[in-house]
Amino acid sequence: MDPIVSQLCSSLCQIVGDKHVLVGEAIDPEYTRDESLTVAPVVPRAVVRPANTAEVAKLLAFANAQRLAVVARGAGTGLSGACTPVAEGIVLSLERMNRILEIDEENQVAVCEPFVRLTELYAAAEAKGLMYAIVPGENSATIGGNVNTNAGGMQAVKYGVTRHHVLGLEVVLADGQVLRTGGKIVKVSSGYDLTQLIVGSEGTLAVVTQVIVKLVPRLPHRKTVLAPFKTLAEVTHAIPKLVATGIGPLMLEYIDVLTMASILQRSKMDLGIDPKLREQAMAYLLLVTEGRDEAGTERDAAELGEKCLELGAMDVFMLPSQAGRQLIEAREQSFWAGKAAGAGDVIDVVVPRASIANYVERAGLIAAEHQALVVGCGHAGDGNVHLAVFHGDAAVRGKVTKALLTAGVELGGAVSGEHGIGRAKKRYYAALEDPAKLVLQRRIKQAFDPNGILNPSAIFD
Amino acid sequence: MDPIVSQLCSSLCQIVGDKHVLVGEAIDPEYTRDESLTVAPVVPRAVVRPANTAEVAKLLAFANAQRLAVVARGAGTGLSGACTPVAEGIVLSLERMNRILEIDEENQVAVCEPFVRLTELYAAAEAKGLMYAIVPGENSATIGGNVNTNAGGMQAVKYGVTRHHVLGLEVVLADGQVLRTGGKIVKVSSGYDLTQLIVGSEGTLAVVTQVIVKLVPRLPHRKTVLAPFKTLAEVTHAIPKLVATGIGPLMLEYIDVLTMASILQRSKMDLGIDPKLREQAMAYLLLVTEGRDEAGTERDAAELGEKCLELGAMDVFMLPSQAGRQLIEAREQSFWAGKAAGAGDVIDVVVPRASIANYVERAGLIAAEHQALVVGCGHAGDGNVHLAVFHGDAAVRGKVTKALLTAGVELGGAVSGEHGIGRAKKRYYAALEDPAKLVLQRRIKQAFDPNGILNPSAIFD
Repeated sequence: MDPIVSQLCSSLCQIVGDKHVLVGEAIDPEYTRDESLTVAPVVPRAVVRPANTAEVAKLLAFANAQRLAVVARGAGTGLSGACTPVAEGIVLSLERMNRILEIDEENQVAVCEPFVRLTELYAAAEAKGLMYAIVPGENSATIGGNVNTNAGGMQAVKYGVTRHHVLGLEVVLADGQVLRTGGKIVKVSSGYDLTQLIVGSEGTLAVVTQVIVKLVPRLPHRKTVLAPFKTLAEVTHAIPKLVATGIGPLMLEYIDVLTMASILQRSKMDLGIDPKLREQAMAYLLLVTEGRDEAGTERDAAELGEKCLELGAMDVFMLPSQAGRQLIEAREQSFWAGKAAGAGDVIDVVVPRASIANYVERAGLIAAEHQALVVGCGHAGDGNVHLAVFHGDAAVRGKVTKALLTAGVELGGAVSGEHGIGRAKKRYYAALEDPAKLVLQRRIKQAFDPNGILNPSAIFD
Repeated sequence: MDPIVSQLCSSLCQIVGDKHVLVGEAIDPEYTRDESLTVAPVVPRAVVRPANTAEVAKLLAFANAQRLAVVARGAGTGLSGACTPVAEGIVLSLERMNRILEIDEENQVAVCEPFVRLTELYAAAEAKGLMYAIVPGENSATIGGNVNTNAGGMQAVKYGVTRHHVLGLEVVLADGQVLRTGGKIVKVSSGYDLTQLIVGSEGTLAVVTQVIVKLVPRLPHRKTVLAPFKTLAEVTHAIPKLVATGIGPLMLEYIDVLTMASILQRSKMDLGIDPKLREQAMAYLLLVTEGRDEAGTERDAAELGEKCLELGAMDVFMLPSQAGRQLIEAREQSFWAGKAAGAGDVIDVVVPRASIANYVERAGLIAAEHQALVVGCGHAGDGNVHLAVFHGDAAVRGKVTKALLTAGVELGGAVSGEHGIGRAKKRYYAALEDPAKLVLQRRIKQAFDPNGILNPSAIFD
């Protein structure tokens, strides 16, 4: 073994025990990457698996003294390469810190270690009649990963994103100091909101070792409406008007014709839509309502359906609950459908909601210009557009991606609505963000992590 | 005139024009203070009134070069002394930047200059069938002030606080650079969330020159329920159970007997409650429901009323809409009622919702121990307790205040839920906050404002 690695290994073993330091061949390829389509895997010097906050603190104090890069890692389900290792550094895998510490029913909060998977959090909340409202779609993701990405998902149109549900954190700073921010409190005006600053910081400011999230009362009824439209433009124009009704759907998604075909094929679903109508439909709106009583939930769904017809829908289908659930699950898998179909890049631009129509039109022009295929779906109610870019040539794909992101920023949007910048979007972010804001962010990074050891390759260099 | 002031005055006049620089006698006492009960007024060297962002940028660049302290000021309705001037510095009054630039119906956002008063924003949103959901109670407050305090209020139990409604900002940094953060977008995961960091920073990080806030669809129906209880303990125990119903009231306030007496007397209201019952009631819960249809709104109110009876309410009154509105307005004036009655200090501790009962009990013991009178009301659904402290001796009042804040922090809460730290709570915050977090916050402050010119006496020294 390389003497540098050997010495490093021995120091790390003293902190977490021999069993929990992996080097060389022992490093499973899973640790070298996330689900990004464009970021190459990197093998780190070592992977360490601390058991608790005290061990994380010791590891960071050690790494800080050695100027050793540290990339914290959850389940690796991210799409931006944010947890990709640094070759000269270590990966801090939080997999052993996986307990739900408390479901506090009276305060309606959950206290979790970072590696609690969403599936487990959903189940634990449900058992108490509560719900963790953020559903990014990939349920094997961890709460710590969600906090670092500020994950969104289909229910964000009603409940907001991860940021809006994180009430407190325990974090370890680069020098090994442990801090607690926020708490089981839903509001606070006492100094700078460190919680909110760390949410979405992609592991560059601190390592999250505990998360307090808000839970909401679980509403028992859901109704799903599917509305096919003749054009994507009609769909995108309908969105602000559906939001303006004040009905407040739980989900408001658009799905273009190719994405719908691919998710239906993949899930082997039959929605019972007349084949003739399916042939003519070029885009779909998927709406879900949620409520305390069944009749009210159905009324809301019917009203949204009526509104869709007014706005040009060819028909409106109230899906039976089983089919509704299946379609939503299939929609959640659209990234995998895109990947299986050979998508070379996936973006998640966010634009002002009323600009979706304009944005989608521009995206079509960009695709045509480069003879690329750009298909997608999106959290329409949030202005968050997910597009998969297909083209055989990586250089062309890069140009298409840059043009798509530029178009979003020009419309007053941002490079990423929920996936984060990580490594995958870093060069685009550097090109499109105000340089003064990049300077200020680097100064904030410096305030937290003077030696720059925490995830030094994410967001910006 | 003092030659220093004279020279300063001439420099400032070059930027904003002679009419908009006030010095000496021309400085109205209003500029020297806010509504805090404990922070003494301070006369600054000058008050400047910039017309636009460009002038603010020039003023800050000048002040930064001169190492001149700058305290930005809205309507001065704050309760923590955050906008109290610095004697050697200038006040930057934003009163001329008072336009609503846009009510964007499709994106459901308002774009405002900082000195837009809440009354105006409410009216402009209402005219388009929309609502700005944050109602801190003092409607003459400005949106810029609200952003800097992260104002809360009675509707926070349903809609959250100011932070949750600010989507974007234009700010001027200490060196005069103008930045835009966020936008008309409801979600974003692209770098550090500078918007959220600046919200609640009390003018210490940047001067806010434009605010983009979310608007929500206006729901036409409201129902008000008033439930008297025999003990305050019953009221506070009822709160988590009422939240757990999932009905999601618009307001969920508790009012203790003395506060209720004082607000009723002040507002000359008669709620038609039987005098015998009033004699026995030691605390009240005030609940408001809101909805799209009248029947549903009434059903929700009735259900909450039933639940109150189950939880020990002596009776439940569905108030006619006029009386409901009046009572809520009167409740909003409770600070003034307390002030008129001679309150020496007002605190707004926040604790975990389920700890309110415990907290209120401790507050009673603290009051008894110091022979002080401590009365209050609060945003019960949020765990945000407003207490007025009465005692003739300022030193004793200080001890009571410190004990009340300490008790809140010990229960996992924070010094301020919505008023902010400003100057009034600074010494308590310094004593009760984790020193490592204070150090980190100072480093963040340094990253934004290396010369420490922005509101240098607020939050921490």
